[in-house]
Order: sequence, then structure tokens, then C-alpha cells
Amino acid sequence: MAPMANLQGGLSEADNPNSLIVRFPESDPLITDAGVDISPFAIAYQTYGVLNAAKSNAILICHALTGDQHVANIHPVTEKPGWWSTMVGPGKPIDTDRYFVICSNVVGGCLGTTGPASTNPGTGKPYGLDLPVITIRDMVRAQAKLIDHLGIEQLFCVAGGSMGGMQVLQWAASYPQRVFCAMPIATAARHSSQNIAFHEVGRQAIMADPNWLGGRYFENEVRPTKGLAVARMAAHITYLSDEALHRKFGRKLQDRESPTFSFDADFQIESYLRHQGSSFVERFDANSYLYVTRAMDYFDLAADYDGSLARAFKGSKTRFCIVSFTSDWLFPTSNSRAIVHALNAGGASVSFVEIETDRGHDAFLLDVPELLATSRGFLESAARARGLA
Amino acid sequence: MAPMANLQGGLSEADNPNSLIVRFPESDPLITDAGVDISPFAIAYQTYGVLNAAKSNAILICHALTGDQHVANIHPVTEKPGWWSTMVGPGKPIDTDRYFVICSNVVGGCLGTTGPASTNPGTGKPYGLDLPVITIRDMVRAQAKLIDHLGIEQLFCVAGGSMGGMQVLQWAASYPQRVFCAMPIATAARHSSQNIAFHEVGRQAIMADPNWLGGRYFENEVRPTKGLAVARMAAHITYLSDEALHRKFGRKLQDRESPTFSFDADFQIESYLRHQGSSFVERFDANSYLYVTRAMDYFDLAADYDGSLARAFKGSKTRFCIVSFTSDWLFPTSNSRAIVHALNAGGASVSFVEIETDRGHDAFLLDVPELLATSRGFLESAARARGLA
Repeated sequence: MAPMANLQGGLSEADNPNSLIVRFPESDPLITDAGVDISPFAIAYQTYGVLNAAKSNAILICHALTGDQHVANIHPVTEKPGWWSTMVGPGKPIDTDRYFVICSNVVGGCLGTTGPASTNPGTGKPYGLDLPVITIRDMVRAQAKLIDHLGIEQLFCVAGGSMGGMQVLQWAASYPQRVFCAMPIATAARHSSQNIAFHEVGRQAIMADPNWLGGRYFENEVRPTKGLAVARMAAHITYLSDEALHRKFGRKLQDRESPTFSFDADFQIESYLRHQGSSFVERFDANSYLYVTRAMDYFDLAADYDGSLARAFKGSKTRFCIVSFTSDWLFPTSNSRAIVHALNAGGASVSFVEIETDRGHDAFLLDVPELLATSRGFLESAARARGLA
Repeated sequence: MAPMANLQGGLSEADNPNSLIVRFPESDPLITDAGVDISPFAIAYQTYGVLNAAKSNAILICHALTGDQHVANIHPVTEKPGWWSTMVGPGKPIDTDRYFVICSNVVGGCLGTTGPASTNPGTGKPYGLDLPVITIRDMVRAQAKLIDHLGIEQLFCVAGGSMGGMQVLQWAASYPQRVFCAMPIATAARHSSQNIAFHEVGRQAIMADPNWLGGRYFENEVRPTKGLAVARMAAHITYLSDEALHRKFGRKLQDRESPTFSFDADFQIESYLRHQGSSFVERFDANSYLYVTRAMDYFDLAADYDGSLARAFKGSKTRFCIVSFTSDWLFPTSNSRAIVHALNAGGASVSFVEIETDRGHDAFLLDVPELLATSRGFLESAARARGLA
């Protein structure tokens, strides 16, 4: 594994990512929902495929909480395939032989877009908690500046799952003219109380780590890895389903015949979770985890439209494809249905598919044939309507 | 709140509880499933009501993970009403005017029964992790010694929810002649992979706290309160339901009109969870949390009967009343159905009620009229069969 951490300078990917990067000067500011100007700021992104002459074949992919811009290439830190390699690539549903695919790291992230691990130009030190709290709308505002920079007037599609789906909904609401079609997957128009609760546990785990130091750990050459690992472990359970855990692990023991009567990882599920925790801290910044979870907590799209989600989409010409999964208890189908009802009430064009699977919330990232077929079919139909060959 | 912690000497309730206590000498040992003799050992317990001359009206209540023996009296540490005051008391379904009610602190607990916070007579210091890992069967073995000590041959009823229900099932399997009727509520005959996973997160949170010190915190006059609070917060979410959280908290803000764009507890659910964490650490020992969660993880009743749960109950004369709750996702109804099927296959007498409620796993502790009515009816019928006036 390539070293990501460079303790004196923060995270090496945060300031000098292995990605394309646009640095917006103070003359081109980003004013966040908290009312703070965070310019100058940077957006790191990846692209795949070729933008056509009409600039009409661009697909923006929005990543989830712990995702990043490395959708379909080998990740520079983990050296593993991109997080949506099943969906994006030559001949895949989001076909890079046909579409120009863009994915940028979210504001608040740690892979090159301005976030708490980035160097604050005002102090020469990592921002830490000096960065204002970021919202989903801030993430989308920043993406819109990137799309402007690339000279693209209208995106053919905006797609993403989980927090990525929140961004898709925000795009469709904020910039209806700029989104020909939209695929929000396994997501919600507002974060639930239960989900805020799980996020709060993760944040408390990070802040309870004495190495967190109020967010100033890089300057002290430590990192709150134990707290971040616990946060990841708790969250990871919510990405899976009871059935999938039962099928995959059950009560099977790890490399032993009988329980050890100890606090070792006797059960396979324990060993698996510990691995999830310890590998995550190699690639993710603890402060970013605070910022990005907070952005999700604050997301309540209807609140910006006098409490009416239908109003957020009123008169929209965007074509929507909403997807949920039967065993997803983090973003259950009821959340997707609420979006569908609002789109219908707003008069939008919407398809809705609930996919039967036991793989839980993580299904959106996995090789689920019905998801891939649905995405392919929706995009082909939309491409014909858009006049893409 | 009365001070529970006495840092130099461990927890004051652990060695000198505000409860009745039986101290079993080395001549009357308890050999645990781990093969370790933990004698001399103590059991702390509460009783309510009067044992009749025939000693036939005793009900043993088994408490859950973070419960204790203070079922229906003011708790000596928190000064709050006992944890099952809705169910137990004069005129209540478990009527202390009629029954002699016993509840003992489990082995591994921290309220007076031998546990990791108790003084190890061999060293004069708290056991910490020197106590062997305890199982549900060990808890029940210890309770059986208490029941022997009280001169009771057969319990009229053994009742409990969650981990208490596991003990009820173990009692019925280990000592079928000694249990006239049994009420295992919101429980399972084996702990699921998902539930082991949640427990492991809690344990990792405790062990990640630098004040944990390998379990030797009392001698160092510190306590891993931050880690234990995080463990409690994560667990507490699993005791509630998504619907109940939505109804009770939704996205309501705490004492403010609009979000603060900070990491403060903006949302009521955050404030509530933080309170759950901080109040829990006043009354519970972190090492006990490790031991008692581990006991639940290891519970798999069928494994002791060649993998057949039906065999555990074969020929049982005990009358069973199984209760589950529709919104309990920690111990879902499918777990209760598996118990019912095994009892039926074993030829036992069994009633089963799934109660419609949105209150999640915690419903067993709450004023849920259908639970109280079911319990009352079941006990009245069993009392007639037992010849209790």
C-alpha cells in the first residue's frame, strides 16, 4: 500500500492529489451555506472517455461518504480498482466509450478538493476545524463551478448512490436546466433521525480519541486512527443487511475450532469488521469524516422549498430513474418512494425500480445484475431522446 | 446522583452492594464454561413479596445486558425507579402481592455479583480481565445456586427480555424440572452475526480508550468513560426503531431555530444520545460491558444439543409464553419463531404473541399494554394450573 499520510504536511493526497485539479482563485469564490467564503479553493477530479464536440455526452458521478473521485481507475492510495468499476468503463452501463465521465472529490473530502486536511493558505497549516461546515448544496455548487470550467452547459446525466444520490437530487433541484437525466440510487431527500444518530456515534468515537486534539492532529504528528476505525466499524454494519451477514459469516469462527473464551476476534464477523476499520484509516482523514457526515445530516431538500419536496422539482424537464434495494435499511425504499411521489407531484418524468437483493445498502456498489441492467436501459433510452448516437 | 465510583477501591457497588448478598465459599465452587473455578464468589440480589410456605410462588427475573437486580425499587446509584416497574409490583402483571420475586445481578456484572470490578480475593485488586470469560450458562448456573440457597426446588416462573430471555431459555433447557413456566421476551436462542458485530464495535470503542489500560483502570484511578459512552450510544440506537426515532425526534433541532453549522448537538437525537452515553458511564463498569456482551455473543443454545434446538426442550413440561415486537430489529420476530418451532417440535406447551408496536427492542421495558396484558393472562393461567390461589 502506498503511504498516504505525510504527518508533517498532512495528507499528501489532500494538497497534491494523483488527479486532475482546478484551483479557483479568490476572484472566483465559493460562498458556503454557512456564509463563509472558502476561496481560494481546489477541486480534484478524474475523467474517463472523450467529451464530444457538442459537449452533450458528459455524465457527472457523485461519490458517497467515504468514496472519492477514483471511480474506475486504480486508486492511488489503496491500489485497488475504482469504487464503481462494475458500473463505469468501456462497455459498462456508464460506457466510457460513449460518454465523457467526470467525478470530483467533494468539498470537505481528503483526496485533493479543499477539505480539513488541505493546507489553509491563510495559515500554511491544515484547515482542521477552521473550515466552515459544508452542506450537500456546497458540494454541488463546487461541482457546478468545475462543470463551468470544463465548458459544459448541460450534463447528460448526474448519477450517484447514497450521499452521491443526495447530490444528484440537489443538482436536479438547483440546476434543472443543466441535468438532462438523473439517477439517484439508494438515497433520500433528507437524512433520517436514525441515520443522524449513527453519524453522531462515529463523530463521538473520533472526538473521544485523545489523538484527535480538537482536529489539530497533523501538526502534532499523530492521527486519531483508533477513533476513526471504530466509527468505520459502526457505519459498516449499517451498509450491510442482517441476512447478508448471516449468509456470509453467520456464527462461523475465525481460524479456530472452538471459542477461545477471550476477547480475541473469535468470530469471522469480528475479524472482518476489524479489518474494515484498520484499512479505512489508511485512506481517509478523520476530520473529513466529521465534515462529510455532517453534510449528510444537514441534508433536507424540502426545507429549502418551504417544506415541499414537490416544489423542489416543479416543472422539471429532467428524466429521473430512482433505484432502491429491498434489504437496504439505511436508506430504505420508503425514502425512495417519497422522492418518487414528489417528482410525480411536480410533474417530472420518473422511473422507479426496487431491486430484490439481500446485500443491503452496499448493493449500489456491487455487481447486482438488475442494477446494471436498469442503469444501462435508462441511459440508452435517455441517450436516444438526447440525440446521442 | 449518588457516587458509584470509588476509584481506589473500584466500584463501591461491586464489592458492597445495596442489595442482599450470598457469598459462596471455595467449598461450594462455580466452575465456568471456560473451565475456571471462580470461587469464592458472590451473588447480589433483590426480592419482592413473600415466599409462601410451599415455596411454590417464586418468580425469577433475569436482567438484560445493562440491567441489574433493581427491578422494582429505587436504584441505589441512579435514584431512578427500577427497570421493570411497569411489569413488577403490587397489582402489576408480576404481582408482588402474590408472587415472591427474585432478581440477581449476573455473573460478570458490576452491582455486587462477582464480576471484573469485584475484588479478586487472590490479589486484593479488581479482577479486571483476570476473570474468565462468562457464558449465559454460567450466569444461570450461578442463579441456580442462589435458588438452592433460598431452598426453592421449583420456580413458578422464569422471565426476562433480551439477554434476560436468553437466560430464561437456558434455565428451561438446563433445569426443566425446576421451571413451571417461562417467559422469554424479545430474545433469541442464538446471537446473530449482526448483533455480534454491534457488540464488537462497542468493545473496540472501550478498548480504544487510552484509559482502559488493558482493563486495569481502577488501580490507575481513571476510567474509560469516553469509550464506554460511545459503546452505549451505538448500542442504544439498536434498542429503538427507525419509526420511533422519527416520531420522537425526527430532524427537530435542540434549543435552537436553525442549524449552527458546527459539530455541536444541533439535533435533538444527538443531544439525547450524548445524554444516554454520559449517564450510562455513571452506573456501569466498562469491563463488565466487555464480559456481558461476550456472554451474549457466545450464546447458541442448540450448539449444546448437537445443533438441534428442539432437542434442548425435548419432553419439557414447562409452559412457555414467547413474545416479540414487530419493530424490534435487534431480536426480530424471526428469532422468536425459531424458538416456537423448536418448542413445538420438542412437544412443549407454547403460546406466542407478536406485539404490534413501533418502539423497537426497548418495548419489553416500556408501558406497552399488550405486553402487560399478555404477561398477566399467561401468569394467571399458569398459577391456576400450579394451584396457586
